[in-house]
Amino acid sequence: MSDLTGSVIFPIGQKFDSNNFNGTVWLNMLTSFGGACPIGNVTFEPGCRNSWHKHPGGQILLVTGGRGWCQEWGKPARELHPGDVVEIPADVKHWHGASKDSWFVHLAIEANAAAGPAEWLEPVSDEDYNNLK
Amino acid sequence: MSDLTGSVIFPIGQKFDSNNFNGTVWLNMLTSFGGACPIGNVTFEPGCRNSWHKHPGGQILLVTGGRGWCQEWGKPARELHPGDVVEIPADVKHWHGASKDSWFVHLAIEANAAAGPAEWLEPVSDEDYNNLK
Repeated sequence: MSDLTGSVIFPIGQKFDSNNFNGTVWLNMLTSFGGACPIGNVTFEPGCRNSWHKHPGGQILLVTGGRGWCQEWGKPARELHPGDVVEIPADVKHWHGASKDSWFVHLAIEANAAAGPAEWLEPVSDEDYNNLK
Repeated sequence: MSDLTGSVIFPIGQKFDSNNFNGTVWLNMLTSFGGACPIGNVTFEPGCRNSWHKHPGGQILLVTGGRGWCQEWGKPARELHPGDVVEIPADVKHWHGASKDSWFVHLAIEANAAAGPAEWLEPVSDEDYNNLK
């Protein structure tokens, strides 16, 4: 974990066991604010990303550490660094995760949580992921 | 600003001219997510705090740098450090800001923005503030 030491602001939390990620990810739910605004601190090991998915109310990512990617279906992937802000509109198919060679940490904020939970889809293919530089 | 260099994640933004703060504060609105979830990065110089105020929908603070305080009316002030999460319930009178000897940076998230804007009240007295250690 030494590569991450300088970029951790919020505690890393617990390993999050989910078939919707291809590797090891840690989740620390910072608050749900009574269900109105779930905020999680998500930490991806290098190479780890989540599957394609949609949020019916959209999602905001605030990047706090490392280097990663976010991609909307049909668009080029966007490289992400600490300080970057990503607005994922409602119902837009996308994925996010670490780069091959770096840990990646972001806050994930569900702005319209009442719209319902994420819809999980297929994994990001190794071919597509490995083409990212 | 050298004391802050190691703790800045999000760009500091612009000086924010407001009678509701007693000193110099910088605001960088990271997103409003279509009005659903305004998120600002707020940076206070040492000694700077806002006036007592209420949010009709409540507010979440995520501390990213420095040392500061948050106090709800009638309760002891809570000392804040990077990684701390503060949930301010709807309509609870409170203030937040830097400690005397440190810069302070937090994300401020309005979880229920549709409830309306903050109601600003009287300044925090120098006597009350100076008693904080």
